[in-house]
Amino acid sequence: SSVCVCVSQIDEEVAKLLELKAQLGGDDGKHQFVLKTAKGTRDYNPKQMAIREKVFNTIIGCFKRHGAETIDTPVFELKETLTGKYGEDSKLIYDLKDQGGELLSLRYDLTVPFARYLAMNKITNIKRYHIAKVYRRDNPAMTRGRYREFYQCDFDIAGQYDAMIPDAECLKIVHEILSELDLGDFRIKVNDRRILDGMFAVCGVPDDKFRTICSTVDKLDKMPWEDVKKEMVNEKGLSEEAADQIGEYVSMQGGMDLAERLLQDQKMCQSKLACAGLSDIKLLFSYLQLFQVTDKVRHAVVFDLSLARGLDYYTGIIYEAVLTQAGVAPVTAEAQNGAPGEESVSVGSVAGGGRYDGLVGMFDPKGRKVPCVGVSIGIERVFSIMEQKAEASAEKVRTTEVQVMVASAQKNLLEEKLKLITELWNAGIKAEVMYKKNPKLLSQLQHCEESGIPLVAILGEQELKDGVVKLRVVATREEVRVRINVVFSKVLKTTSFRVTH
Amino acid sequence: SSVCVCVSQIDEEVAKLLELKAQLGGDDGKHQFVLKTAKGTRDYNPKQMAIREKVFNTIIGCFKRHGAETIDTPVFELKETLTGKYGEDSKLIYDLKDQGGELLSLRYDLTVPFARYLAMNKITNIKRYHIAKVYRRDNPAMTRGRYREFYQCDFDIAGQYDAMIPDAECLKIVHEILSELDLGDFRIKVNDRRILDGMFAVCGVPDDKFRTICSTVDKLDKMPWEDVKKEMVNEKGLSEEAADQIGEYVSMQGGMDLAERLLQDQKMCQSKLACAGLSDIKLLFSYLQLFQVTDKVRHAVVFDLSLARGLDYYTGIIYEAVLTQAGVAPVTAEAQNGAPGEESVSVGSVAGGGRYDGLVGMFDPKGRKVPCVGVSIGIERVFSIMEQKAEASAEKVRTTEVQVMVASAQKNLLEEKLKLITELWNAGIKAEVMYKKNPKLLSQLQHCEESGIPLVAILGEQELKDGVVKLRVVATREEVRVRINVVFSKVLKTTSFRVTH
Repeated sequence: SSVCVCVSQIDEEVAKLLELKAQLGGDDGKHQFVLKTAKGTRDYNPKQMAIREKVFNTIIGCFKRHGAETIDTPVFELKETLTGKYGEDSKLIYDLKDQGGELLSLRYDLTVPFARYLAMNKITNIKRYHIAKVYRRDNPAMTRGRYREFYQCDFDIAGQYDAMIPDAECLKIVHEILSELDLGDFRIKVNDRRILDGMFAVCGVPDDKFRTICSTVDKLDKMPWEDVKKEMVNEKGLSEEAADQIGEYVSMQGGMDLAERLLQDQKMCQSKLACAGLSDIKLLFSYLQLFQVTDKVRHAVVFDLSLARGLDYYTGIIYEAVLTQAGVAPVTAEAQNGAPGEESVSVGSVAGGGRYDGLVGMFDPKGRKVPCVGVSIGIERVFSIMEQKAEASAEKVRTTEVQVMVASAQKNLLEEKLKLITELWNAGIKAEVMYKKNPKLLSQLQHCEESGIPLVAILGEQELKDGVVKLRVVATREEVRVRINVVFSKVLKTTSFRVTH
Repeated sequence: SSVCVCVSQIDEEVAKLLELKAQLGGDDGKHQFVLKTAKGTRDYNPKQMAIREKVFNTIIGCFKRHGAETIDTPVFELKETLTGKYGEDSKLIYDLKDQGGELLSLRYDLTVPFARYLAMNKITNIKRYHIAKVYRRDNPAMTRGRYREFYQCDFDIAGQYDAMIPDAECLKIVHEILSELDLGDFRIKVNDRRILDGMFAVCGVPDDKFRTICSTVDKLDKMPWEDVKKEMVNEKGLSEEAADQIGEYVSMQGGMDLAERLLQDQKMCQSKLACAGLSDIKLLFSYLQLFQVTDKVRHAVVFDLSLARGLDYYTGIIYEAVLTQAGVAPVTAEAQNGAPGEESVSVGSVAGGGRYDGLVGMFDPKGRKVPCVGVSIGIERVFSIMEQKAEASAEKVRTTEVQVMVASAQKNLLEEKLKLITELWNAGIKAEVMYKKNPKLLSQLQHCEESGIPLVAILGEQELKDGVVKLRVVATREEVRVRINVVFSKVLKTTSFRVTH
């Protein structure tokens, strides 16, 4: 961990020096402007936006189907609002410069602002979604969809309810969205912080080391057990014996049967906390069955004791969804039996969440608690996959919804074209005209082909005399002469366009 | 101006001290947590979000009708990207703390990031919209819809085109959006930076004072002429004679006729720049007529020589839309005749923009220019008005789109309810169930009334035996027994819900 910090510091120092060099200018002494976006961020071009809109529509559609309202919060919060919520990840928070006034930080997730919102407005139950960008000074791996600025699509249920019903709905939502986005096989891992804490207790981890050992366990999806164990023993000062006991548990994966087996486990059942967690896992699986989210082959839900999740604020059930490469069976028979199954190659986590019953209370002046559970869909990786798919596909992505282009066959018809397009716009039709007095007919037709506009309304001197317009179907080059007052209905009938708003 | 800076500095120092006090804690020595959003920012609750969604749909609908694509850029840019673009307003830019790495600032508008995007990707023509939040360390007046974090809805046309055609379309768009949002009367003021510069030249303003005098003229909508003149003479060192000559011009308002009259003006016509601007104003008005945006009574477009706009980057036509209070005629006969008309009370600018032909060139390594014109709709004030309207109206704002609630009349039916709601969700129906094992029927019905859910599907033991569901219309309390397999089509037929996605 300390090595990581050093490397990233060196990286940043180098970036600083290169920037300084750029500011001082090149050999010719001229100012060399650095034309780029900030490290770890990117622009979205119109094609990427069209894909993003499609993904958002799927996700928002699902959130609305489950009856969620939506809220929005500012991009920055008072610095102290974020303090003490993220554990070791706090160092990744972006602070704003102190320009006088309040000390501010960019939001690190949407969960803490949501909890602050609930406490501030004394809201004790709500089901809401929130789609917005969050900011983390992480080392970006942009080719794999890891950015410093990225979207989170959060769905949360706050309120005092019967156990595991809202929790199961969160998993149902992940299942629906990942299935609908058609990203191939995926696996949803579930665990419970109480099981982890109970496990740490029975394995002999001192109370004050629970959180830090939990952070180390969280690295199991990136590091082999040997390295995780080393970190526990050498860096965190855990006894080798305790580490080995943890190692046995965290290799276990399964379903409801594993929860049942662990409830009988001599050591585990010494912890009341762990037992409560295990009973809830059983209940969760029973609800998941009713919700039809337990297709064990392609989209499995797996009880995985190695799942820890980095953030400090979780108190109960936790989960994470990973896409598994096509053709790789996500859960092998061994895993189902609890043996350390052959890990399939994961292309990364696309959703995660859990229960955080204490977070709102941290903001309430009287410490009143509001139980919450939620899920966050991270869609940058989804975008990456959808983009690759779109590029591989023969179908062209349209970036506008224009139904008809108003064009002219001869010169000096600008005035007539502007009159016609005004009527089209007034009728609610999506229409374009070239911003030239006398464009060539060919260039007008070319524009239609390039941007997928299906129809052209061509004005000509003869047509104007006859009170008609030539309506041309771009794909077939078919042309019909129609009276100006029926152009509208004709356009509306002919064009079948994507409706998004 | 220097007085303003002092006052705001004092304000900020006071805020800092109060914050320090809060951190140190109250009398009891306990940590007093400040539960608030950052100064000048606010949350949106679900009702406000429903209104916001409606406003966005109107605006996006208009942008798409005019054939725009959309892009997105990061919330922060390299600090140097923003340097030298905003003139005196640069002091309002939020900087990020230097945490190692690049120096970053939050975007101040969407125009400069757009220009950076065009230069970076070597794009020479595009018509795009971008809706996103921007950040200004201004003194907020939140009751009047002025925030430090606020949305801008930008539409811009980049490319080398014939004069005034894209410019006129931008005004057409402002006119369409403000009309469609139904905000009452409004006025669109237009002017041209070349006319201002030409006017400054013929009035004897030294070249190097054009920009700063322009900033002072920009204050005419907030300050009387006497104070503006004082600033010009006392603070900016302009001669009294020059100021008086400017005073005469900037009191002029009118239409195409005023442009014609000024083209004959002995002094004004000495400036080629001013003449070019005046000819373009004439051309603009002719296109506006074709676009049907010159309803002179309620939604007037006015050529107003006092309009200056603060930002440095404008090079040609500039415009601003203001809402005028209902019942106050926005343009009086005097104004039409060019005399200083009685200024109607304005509730503030809701849109603004202009031509900026040099901005992209500032980013291009070889200085290649891309002519641009655009408009920015500022919707916080629009939200304020719409919110007031919604509150005054008897109609309740729904914050979800739930079509049916799955309820039970007896205990122990959770499993059956979860099975039914799963089928409803799978069929794409928006449905809710209470997260309780045994909720009371009354509380389930109350939830429907509170959140406007039109239908309830009630499960009972007898109904389950008969293979039916009781479908209740909440408004009329009418109930019908339908077979489970036709619940779906019945719900879809009965519920007419708002479609937004």
